[in-house]
Amino acid sequence: MKKSIFYHAGCPVCISAEHDMIALIGAEGVEVVNIGEEKARIAEAESAGVVSVPALVAPNGNVLHINFGASMEDVKG
Amino acid sequence: MKKSIFYHAGCPVCISAEHDMIALIGAEGVEVVNIGEEKARIAEAESAGVVSVPALVAPNGNVLHINFGASMEDVKG
Repeated sequence: MKKSIFYHAGCPVCISAEHDMIALIGAEGVEVVNIGEEKARIAEAESAGVVSVPALVAPNGNVLHINFGASMEDVKG
Repeated sequence: MKKSIFYHAGCPVCISAEHDMIALIGAEGVEVVNIGEEKARIAEAESAGVVSVPALVAPNGNVLHINFGASMEDVKG
């Protein structure tokens, strides 16, 4: 199965949502990307439709924005 | 395993998120509640911390607000 990608930026809201989503989906189904650290992947996240973090891009391409930790502008600093 | 509860109100954002979450978690792990139709369960959702729909209440009690379809005030009409 194609993996989901969970984008976050290390904020408390992000980490909490990450733990919950991994508990629900299973770690093997999710790639976790910290775009606060891996800034090279910010463009990839934006291109997928991510406008805030935490967000999960499902295998079908749909973006699920989960709660609200930070906007992409915040992440870019 | 204790089930998650997915609260929604029938809006297009809700239905899309419902399909995505069920694809990710599996239908057997999620109870789906349409609080637009089952208005008696609005209080239960609010008590769990749901402030907008769609939202998933995880087995650990954490509330994941997924995208934004409608506020609880909208649902109450």
